Amino acid sequence: MKTPTEIVQLMMDNDAFSHWLGIDVELIEIGKCSLKCKITSEMLNGFLIAHGGISYALADSSLAFAANSHGQHCVSVETSISHLGKVLLGDELTSIAKEIYRGKKTGVYEVDVFNQNQRLIAHFKGTVFVGDKEW
Amino acid sequence: MKTPTEIVQLMMDNDAFSHWLGIDVELIEIGKCSLKCKITSEMLNGFLIAHGGISYALADSSLAFAANSHGQHCVSVETSISHLGKVLLGDELTSIAKEIYRGKKTGVYEVDVFNQNQRLIAHFKGTVFVGDKEW
Amino acid sequence: MKTPTEIVQLMMDNDAFSHWLGIDVELIEIGKCSLKCKITSEMLNGFLIAHGGISYALADSSLAFAANSHGQHCVSVETSISHLGKVLLGDELTSIAKEIYRGKKTGVYEVDVFNQNQRLIAHFKGTVFVGDKEW
Amino acid sequence: MKTPTEIVQLMMDNDAFSHWLGIDVELIEIGKCSLKCKITSEMLNGFLIAHGGISYALADSSLAFAANSHGQHCVSVETSISHLGKVLLGDELTSIAKEIYRGKKTGVYEVDVFNQNQRLIAHFKGTVFVGDKEW
Repeated sequence: MKTPTEIVQLMMDNDAFSHWLGIDVELIEIGKCSLKCKITSEMLNGFLIAHGGISYALADSSLAFAANSHGQHCVSVETSISHLGKVLLGDELTSIAKEIYRGKKTGVYEVDVFNQNQRLIAHFKGTVFVGDKEW
Repeated sequence: MKTPTEIVQLMMDNDAFSHWLGIDVELIEIGKCSLKCKITSEMLNGFLIAHGGISYALADSSLAFAANSHGQHCVSVETSISHLGKVLLGDELTSIAKEIYRGKKTGVYEVDVFNQNQRLIAHFKGTVFVGDKEW
Repeated sequence: MKTPTEIVQLMMDNDAFSHWLGIDVELIEIGKCSLKCKITSEMLNGFLIAHGGISYALADSSLAFAANSHGQHCVSVETSISHLGKVLLGDELTSIAKEIYRGKKTGVYEVDVFNQNQRLIAHFKGTVFVGDKEW
Repeated sequence: MKTPTEIVQLMMDNDAFSHWLGIDVELIEIGKCSLKCKITSEMLNGFLIAHGGISYALADSSLAFAANSHGQHCVSVETSISHLGKVLLGDELTSIAKEIYRGKKTGVYEVDVFNQNQRLIAHFKGTVFVGDKEW
């Protein structure tokens, strides 16, 4: 059986969008994950703040890694995000995913996204379906 | 007072991430919006399907345009998305945003995202706060 | 295999809380459900409007009936509701549940709740896990 | 300006549904709230487990009290709940509401609901609109 680190390595391999986002894996343990990325000019919208899709993508990847770390393939079923603060060019975002619940068939995770000043800029919740297939 | 088309033009101007996504505006009316984008190789994750952040970003932009089309600045408060089907390289996504509710202070919108075969690949719901500032 | 009407009859039998709510089944078909209930004084909060739990309960029952109507036991995984209008003593609420998506393992449903003046007072979304057990 | 305890007392006064639910206020501080209630036979559905509307109602009241404790009238805008465990006749539920974010116009709260064995049976998230009117 693979370790959480090996699973995330497999998931990150050939992951073009994560590379575009510049995601760094800070921490990966069973049910936990922390990622980082830096806001570039291509990630901004017309108001010169990061598009909501950027913090969503960071949180969604954190969910995927935390949920799959147990060793079974998990599929995202429903996710929600509250955007709580502006994200600017050059900001360094850190996501922290934690497991709220893990059952045989479903799991629930939360992800907080902070900027470099430890300000909470987004709060995310995700539910996954736990499949039978192992990594 | 500006028209919905003028407002969206202002929002799209200098919107680097929407340009990166290759978003085309198909329709914009008060409370309604339809966008298109095509999946490129940079939008794929390690499973060679589009990252969840791509359909979220398309839906979130659709929400923003539909909500702001009334003429007042709106801020996204809470959004949720269900990913319902795989999105592959070369797929052409179409979003259709509609208004569920519009009050003085808040609005609720839904966005369906279809692929080129009219298959529903994501369903999104968003709540906005309606500000005082006019476009 | 049981019909949608037979399944809902089984679900309503001995359902004490639905009886307390005074729920009437208006329509039940595969993937669809419409329920009614009337607001009594016991359902009000301190502001003399119906507690949010009342319209949630009506929508949640509508979800359960619509999802189980296919013949397999379904379990609610994640639900959300937006309260969009005040509900007063004596109001007659009608819920209308429709199927957004039905896969092998999950289903997504929406429920609109209207008052007797056809005003939308709540919008609900629910995701279910489709089990193996048949009714 | 009223204290959190005084505000909740005002909200609970004449709150018929909270009395029906048998809600006890365990703790109320600015941005925090803990409530209790015991499951009676009238709260059960046809499977002899508590209807999802019961834990939702407990969580929604916890949200309302925590959000209003600051002194300004708050209105629930969007709420979601994941039902994570069965609730049985005689179970004693405890809700714990905490503040994730509080801005000038909106606030985000989470509520965990536990049974008497400290098992998490529901996880709730709620967004409120902060009004101008003071208690």
